[in-house]
Amino acid sequence: MSDLKIRPAAHDDIPAIVAMLADDPLGAQRESPDDLTPYTEAYERLARDPNQHVVVAERDGRVIGTLQLTIIPGLSRRGATRSIIEAVRVHADERGSGLGTRFIEWAVDESRRQGCQLVQLTSDASRTDAHRFYERLGFTASHVGFKMSI
Amino acid sequence: MSDLKIRPAAHDDIPAIVAMLADDPLGAQRESPDDLTPYTEAYERLARDPNQHVVVAERDGRVIGTLQLTIIPGLSRRGATRSIIEAVRVHADERGSGLGTRFIEWAVDESRRQGCQLVQLTSDASRTDAHRFYERLGFTASHVGFKMSI
Repeated sequence: MSDLKIRPAAHDDIPAIVAMLADDPLGAQRESPDDLTPYTEAYERLARDPNQHVVVAERDGRVIGTLQLTIIPGLSRRGATRSIIEAVRVHADERGSGLGTRFIEWAVDESRRQGCQLVQLTSDASRTDAHRFYERLGFTASHVGFKMSI
Repeated sequence: MSDLKIRPAAHDDIPAIVAMLADDPLGAQRESPDDLTPYTEAYERLARDPNQHVVVAERDGRVIGTLQLTIIPGLSRRGATRSIIEAVRVHADERGSGLGTRFIEWAVDESRRQGCQLVQLTSDASRTDAHRFYERLGFTASHVGFKMSI
């Protein structure tokens, strides 16, 4: 892991990011790696928002992971700021390499730097390996995550 | 419910919002209604962020509910934008009045107006009444919600 670099995602990283989003049992049904237009539009919006941090992990010039960190100010918990980690993906070749751990640890450290008091994420109920992973890293499975497509 | 109004929270609403955040089995331990300074600072930050919508429900000039809606652009799901509903509180006098339903329906409608394709929220595992409420409104309890204080 000597040369691992975690850095903001650049426009040129979009194809590699989308390929990782699609290479996943759930993502395969939801992504369209052959048409990058909607991703490019979303990237431009994300890049303009100072509370959004889409990052990639890179080694030897190759993008091997991505995640999105969102900073959310709030009134509850004495005006606490929280962060939300979304869209965590590690390239298939790199799973089990410890990259996931380093990546989430980076997100937690970055959240602290941004003044957050709480880090949260949701994980699909079917991803039981991921649940054990997050608990090992110190997260508590204290909540039920509800979603609705509109 | 004839005169119910849902509107952006104003600076002057902070005491009423904090009182509702604190009047809750979980909130009672986390809030400090006698010291509004951290809430006022957080309010200023929220008010500057176009992706943050802290709203109140008002009837006959009285604030009877609050919630925070956050708009989150993203790359996954073909560049989908999602919204997150946080810090939903209804005044103790108004529980069971249907306000909660109207409030969440408002948040879903507003999410649609903001171009979101997905609405999500997490609810503490102990709030089983709330879970039934969200399922009745069309949400699916598909995820596990992880949190870590930092």
